Amino acid sequence: MLEDSNCVAPLLRFLRFASISAHAQAAATSVRCAAWLAGHLKRIGMHNVNVSKTKGNPIVTAEWLVDRERPTVLIYGHYDVQPADPLSQWISPPFEPVVRGEYLYARGASDDKGQLFCHVCAVERLLQSAGHFPVNVKFVVEGEEEIGSPNLAAFLEQNKRELSADVAVVSDNCILGPDRPAITYALRGSLDVELHISGQGNDLHSGNFGGVVYNPLRGLCEILAKLQDESGRILIPGFYDQVANISGEERDYLRRHGPSDKEVLKQAGASIANGEPGFTLYENATVRPSVTITGITGGYQGPGPKGVIAAHASAKLDFRLVPHQDPSQIDKLFRDYIAGIVPSALKVRIFTQKRTQTAITSLKHPAIHAAFSAYKRAFGRSPVFIRSGGTIPIVGLLQRIMGIPTVLMGFALPDDALHAPNERLHLPTFFRGISTSAHFLTELVRNSSVNLQSGAVGSLLTSKFNSTAGGALA
Amino acid sequence: MLEDSNCVAPLLRFLRFASISAHAQAAATSVRCAAWLAGHLKRIGMHNVNVSKTKGNPIVTAEWLVDRERPTVLIYGHYDVQPADPLSQWISPPFEPVVRGEYLYARGASDDKGQLFCHVCAVERLLQSAGHFPVNVKFVVEGEEEIGSPNLAAFLEQNKRELSADVAVVSDNCILGPDRPAITYALRGSLDVELHISGQGNDLHSGNFGGVVYNPLRGLCEILAKLQDESGRILIPGFYDQVANISGEERDYLRRHGPSDKEVLKQAGASIANGEPGFTLYENATVRPSVTITGITGGYQGPGPKGVIAAHASAKLDFRLVPHQDPSQIDKLFRDYIAGIVPSALKVRIFTQKRTQTAITSLKHPAIHAAFSAYKRAFGRSPVFIRSGGTIPIVGLLQRIMGIPTVLMGFALPDDALHAPNERLHLPTFFRGISTSAHFLTELVRNSSVNLQSGAVGSLLTSKFNSTAGGALA
Repeated sequence: MLEDSNCVAPLLRFLRFASISAHAQAAATSVRCAAWLAGHLKRIGMHNVNVSKTKGNPIVTAEWLVDRERPTVLIYGHYDVQPADPLSQWISPPFEPVVRGEYLYARGASDDKGQLFCHVCAVERLLQSAGHFPVNVKFVVEGEEEIGSPNLAAFLEQNKRELSADVAVVSDNCILGPDRPAITYALRGSLDVELHISGQGNDLHSGNFGGVVYNPLRGLCEILAKLQDESGRILIPGFYDQVANISGEERDYLRRHGPSDKEVLKQAGASIANGEPGFTLYENATVRPSVTITGITGGYQGPGPKGVIAAHASAKLDFRLVPHQDPSQIDKLFRDYIAGIVPSALKVRIFTQKRTQTAITSLKHPAIHAAFSAYKRAFGRSPVFIRSGGTIPIVGLLQRIMGIPTVLMGFALPDDALHAPNERLHLPTFFRGISTSAHFLTELVRNSSVNLQSGAVGSLLTSKFNSTAGGALA
Repeated sequence: MLEDSNCVAPLLRFLRFASISAHAQAAATSVRCAAWLAGHLKRIGMHNVNVSKTKGNPIVTAEWLVDRERPTVLIYGHYDVQPADPLSQWISPPFEPVVRGEYLYARGASDDKGQLFCHVCAVERLLQSAGHFPVNVKFVVEGEEEIGSPNLAAFLEQNKRELSADVAVVSDNCILGPDRPAITYALRGSLDVELHISGQGNDLHSGNFGGVVYNPLRGLCEILAKLQDESGRILIPGFYDQVANISGEERDYLRRHGPSDKEVLKQAGASIANGEPGFTLYENATVRPSVTITGITGGYQGPGPKGVIAAHASAKLDFRLVPHQDPSQIDKLFRDYIAGIVPSALKVRIFTQKRTQTAITSLKHPAIHAAFSAYKRAFGRSPVFIRSGGTIPIVGLLQRIMGIPTVLMGFALPDDALHAPNERLHLPTFFRGISTSAHFLTELVRNSSVNLQSGAVGSLLTSKFNSTAGGALA
């Protein structure tokens, strides 16, 4: 593993860029981060390395083409990261990566710079074994995944030919544990909105005016309290109308191989669950939709008291959606519901921040076979097939625009503190991820003799999932 | 009025101190502000000027004693101010006072540096008319009124003798308009608390965990939504049990002389009211209790989306209380209520920030007579008697510790933007305030012949209010 350790130094450099896509003021940092990544891809020997401008953060592409007859793999990753708030809860600064024990701590260590680097390092290793590169490889690395990839569809449309491939691989998701490899075959979609409430024109003295106007902060709380019932079920009329039920067979498989309620709670650091009744927590996190108030703010934010009725308040909401919920339709249902419950004394404005479709990968595709073998070789045990509650916009875009399936080959662990303070990368799993990627690229060649595009290789799971949610696994 | 204009220059200097008592980091500024004020009181000729340390911000005292046979007036004010948040809404910086039209804009311009300066300037003017100072005057100016005067009671206890007086005058409240002078005879009490909600141990990815845990932000909204019913009535069991009903006579008087619903709404900049049914808005703001969510915060506060379930959320609440509600008892009722409604998956902690008793001044006191005459002379019309929804801790303390009544001689206007951005002082009213103070000090001498302490002067309002709320005006 010595050669893998050499991969840690450039990853540390990569993690020092505070490439937070949600922050407009970080745009210049993102440009520098993209340039650094492009330089690194050149240094390891990739060809046609480009940094392409978009309306937002640039997209880095690179390729290594060995033989037109061999399969082509498009490796996707993102160099942008979530905001590091709340900063006070980080043990070490989020953009000063540090290794403590088996873990590397930094914002983006796992999501997604670390996982992307599994492939970068695997490709570097294969390039060093001169002349034996197994497949054609293309990289596409964007800088806006965490804000819903607003400029990625246009880029894919414009570069269809340059990015053409047989299959895509994305490592931006979790396996079940350090010794529990897993292939994700389904992602939830998402809808992110911001809700602004205003009342009287100005802030008012809460002594002189307390009891006479409808406090916008109170109105905001009342509205948000009406989103879910006590059990967690979402109260927006029509919200569940399009939700596909998964087959009994798939439920059985997920219950057998997925995490138990106890495991999910442990990962969450919670003692009491709150999920839609009639479903396991794993099901609630993957095959059922959810809504989360991700941020709320209004009025006085400083220390001590302040006697004020604030004129404005706002909240951010994150819906996670499942087949066949359409983010645009849910957006409309949400807006209609809010319009119907907002007190007449208050005004509400809703801003849609991102909308992402759900995504499903067929388990019949031969690349899934290659991924299965690769995990088995690198981890010493067979991976299971899981659904993820997360959202990765490119998966649906690749299917729609490029017509190619995506293998979700995650290397993150459930306790990596993704999106949270003290995000970390489990280095032994990172090294296994590098091996998995290298095996995957090699396995694809073997499978290529059958023809990757035909999907003619038999499914690993026979066809038992074919009738599942949304024809999801057909 | 030329001599009054000279008073504006030192007031401008006074307003430059960002003496925000809620901010611990402003402590040194408060010390400098107190020292400056002491220096100014010396410059205008006051004796025994002292800056006394407390456990918090220092207290400034000064005196001018002419004759032990004459009445002694204790003038109270506070040099601390409310936080200036939200800063972005100020047209000019809050601590760079500026005159635009008839108004002086700055945090504290009206509350309370400007109103305090009405007395400082009046005393300065009287001191200049050498040898004719009418009464004994003592100043006590604190720096923690806006956080509930936590160190004032101890200071009054320790300095009972030095501060002994026949009557106190406080100008920290509103009249009805530039041509509508008013004497406030009742203040609401207050209870300020902070509510902290926590759930799972850490922030979580809202994709991977959305739908499995009880989001603390949701819990906070649900709890806060249960504080009031739709009409605004407070739902805490027992909350209204001790609320005194005011007499029909007093209601009639307040309806005749107080602001109409339309006027209150106009002052609030609101088009639709939300007050307890069965009461005018003015009654809701003065003789009925209220609760205001003054601040709420939790989760991601930056721009754009963030996929996170935050581990913590918090809110600040400001209750305004009326006779005979006891802040400590309401605090307990509130805590019991919250304990009963918090979801079992969440933990709640409540911090009490301040508790202030309600206060009532008898209209029979001769100093009220003096104030009446003084307003009439300075404003050219008789003042009316009003209740205020605000809270001034010292009024109750002076009654309890020193045994003296307080005349609430306000000079603020309802649209001064107290506690809000762009706080301002109406300069013509400020100049009238100076005259009112000077007349008041002179009128007291006349009344002193009757004996201030006896309260023997007949009530201005006959005795018709005597049976009112809490024996309020008895």
